[in-house]
Amino acid sequence: MTVTADAQQFLQAGLDQTPCLVIDVDVARTQYERIAHAFAGAGVHYAVKANPEPPLLRALVAAGCQFDVASRAEIDLCLAAGASPGDLSYGNTIKKSEDIAYAYARGVRMFSFDSDMELDKIVTHAPGSSVLCRVLASSDGARWPLSRKFGCVPEMAAELMKVAALRGLDPAGIAFHVGSQQLHPDRWEPSIATAAWIFKVLEQSGISLRILNAGGGFPVPYRTPVAPISAFASAVFDAVRRHFGHKPPSLMIEPGRYIAGPAGVLHTQVVLVSRKSYDDEPRWVYLDVGRFGGLAETEDEAIQYELTAPRGGPTGPVILAGPTCDSVDILYQHAPYDLPLDLAAGEVIRIHGTGAYTATYSAVGFNGLPPLRTVVSP
Amino acid sequence: MTVTADAQQFLQAGLDQTPCLVIDVDVARTQYERIAHAFAGAGVHYAVKANPEPPLLRALVAAGCQFDVASRAEIDLCLAAGASPGDLSYGNTIKKSEDIAYAYARGVRMFSFDSDMELDKIVTHAPGSSVLCRVLASSDGARWPLSRKFGCVPEMAAELMKVAALRGLDPAGIAFHVGSQQLHPDRWEPSIATAAWIFKVLEQSGISLRILNAGGGFPVPYRTPVAPISAFASAVFDAVRRHFGHKPPSLMIEPGRYIAGPAGVLHTQVVLVSRKSYDDEPRWVYLDVGRFGGLAETEDEAIQYELTAPRGGPTGPVILAGPTCDSVDILYQHAPYDLPLDLAAGEVIRIHGTGAYTATYSAVGFNGLPPLRTVVSP
Repeated sequence: MTVTADAQQFLQAGLDQTPCLVIDVDVARTQYERIAHAFAGAGVHYAVKANPEPPLLRALVAAGCQFDVASRAEIDLCLAAGASPGDLSYGNTIKKSEDIAYAYARGVRMFSFDSDMELDKIVTHAPGSSVLCRVLASSDGARWPLSRKFGCVPEMAAELMKVAALRGLDPAGIAFHVGSQQLHPDRWEPSIATAAWIFKVLEQSGISLRILNAGGGFPVPYRTPVAPISAFASAVFDAVRRHFGHKPPSLMIEPGRYIAGPAGVLHTQVVLVSRKSYDDEPRWVYLDVGRFGGLAETEDEAIQYELTAPRGGPTGPVILAGPTCDSVDILYQHAPYDLPLDLAAGEVIRIHGTGAYTATYSAVGFNGLPPLRTVVSP
Repeated sequence: MTVTADAQQFLQAGLDQTPCLVIDVDVARTQYERIAHAFAGAGVHYAVKANPEPPLLRALVAAGCQFDVASRAEIDLCLAAGASPGDLSYGNTIKKSEDIAYAYARGVRMFSFDSDMELDKIVTHAPGSSVLCRVLASSDGARWPLSRKFGCVPEMAAELMKVAALRGLDPAGIAFHVGSQQLHPDRWEPSIATAAWIFKVLEQSGISLRILNAGGGFPVPYRTPVAPISAFASAVFDAVRRHFGHKPPSLMIEPGRYIAGPAGVLHTQVVLVSRKSYDDEPRWVYLDVGRFGGLAETEDEAIQYELTAPRGGPTGPVILAGPTCDSVDILYQHAPYDLPLDLAAGEVIRIHGTGAYTATYSAVGFNGLPPLRTVVSP
């Protein structure tokens, strides 16, 4: 992760106003190019929820990226950044009728769903649109696993797609998601096999699906290395070949973390270093950002960010916590973290890889603290 | 929980704009009077973090309430609501130096701490102020337990108070907190005994403490009844008598949830009702508010709010989830909840007892969704 000279300048300017997330758009663009190259031929839809900063969206539009949106606001942000509505896929399977109508009025024609009630809404408020039906997928092996919240069983997906076709929608394809920060390239295959089965079943009913949306989940290195994106691409392409044979679908992916995560460095100040007793165990280090200030993914210590201290010298173990009076606002007490033994209040710690799922997750005024500020560079 | 006629009007006006938290200030005032009566003689400091809505703060000022603040913004809100700075206690043990200086400049003279570094900051930035040292307390039995994040061992508290006196601060007393939504009245006694021990140790060094801050944690009924506040007051007073004998300290309490919780009703709309398969288990009901939209305390299903459906009729079990693409945004999948079998998208569900720890916990723009809106009545 390189911080550009511009970012350094921004940073100097903002150092007395921690916490502050510095986003380097160049890094995000490079990540986009990397995944688009690895998945050559696939439609790359950036999951805007990861980080909707306008300069980042503009850079991705310019680079040829498409977008996965979850709400009205994300649609507006993408269109304002210059995206064409045809490049947007409304991937949230939980949409209000008026939000579907809003999207449709702005030209969005691709919607995901996983239930008959959502299908009804799309038929009514986005007639003739293309739909992707999301199927349940196992997210074993993901650091931020997805649950049964999204998707339906394959048999139901096949039935729903028949209904979609009957009701004038374009039954475009099948979507699934193997869980965010999914570390294992082989976890895509079972869902690809499932999707191929649904394609085949529907073919027999005269319905030809064409899109396979393999979702996101592509991991980034936090404190430990991960397999290169090429390994994930190979695993996906191999599985598609194996299960679809000579009639491969158009592939679509929805990376969020992979593009935005490495682009962010969160600058946070040490508020307090303390011990609970004179002969105590690890020090407690309290930062001015915590679980409710943007680091929501530290819940259960799921995502373990890399930290850097302002300077070298001997270090020792610490428990890391946020600045609020809420005791669940603890970042890491089981994961091993070390910081300088002479760490003092006011020193700035950098938290790396924080470009995704941080700023927008920040609470609006928890304990009276302001939400996380973002500075974009260059 | 009564919703006033005014609230009903607000509500009618806002029904098409769910989610919306309706706060009934009368209910909060009544709750304040109830706890102030039960704890007659004690200083009641409302924990502003529970809900900092200005009309609520103004009503509490008028009723004679004092305040526990956690940040600059909460100080400003209290002063703007008419509180005198002498009625404010800066109870957060994790404060930036500049925030201590800010509080001091505005007349705040009571600060909590639990470490030598924080003591240093108070000596420098709030010279001569009164200090409360927070000790570790067990929060067994609390639905939202506190951890070792706050407080130090009693021996350290005694030493720190000696240092406080030597460095020109007013060693006022001892603070502890037994965990929020603490269901067991007898859980205060062990910490009261600890505090009495510290009082005695310091007396031997010629330091007379005078304040016992027994914190908050007083529970409100969500789906199950809780012991009346008088039971908690009796338990606390009895324990104080038992451990302090003929020299009782001034008692101070910091209720947040008890005052604000029952004053709120969150109006949320059903976005989707779905099943994962045709022969499936419970329905999934997706609301337009979730864990990141204000219901943070549903983490691990800790706080189980009472819900009411718009109408009667046969009901069946449901899993409740929020509207975002994040799969940890699930409210209840283990706790048993039932809703009408014919529940439809667009219907409004009321979530009761949501006045505390909701609106300010809401994410600033998670998935592009706006934060929870509050309407105050009357």
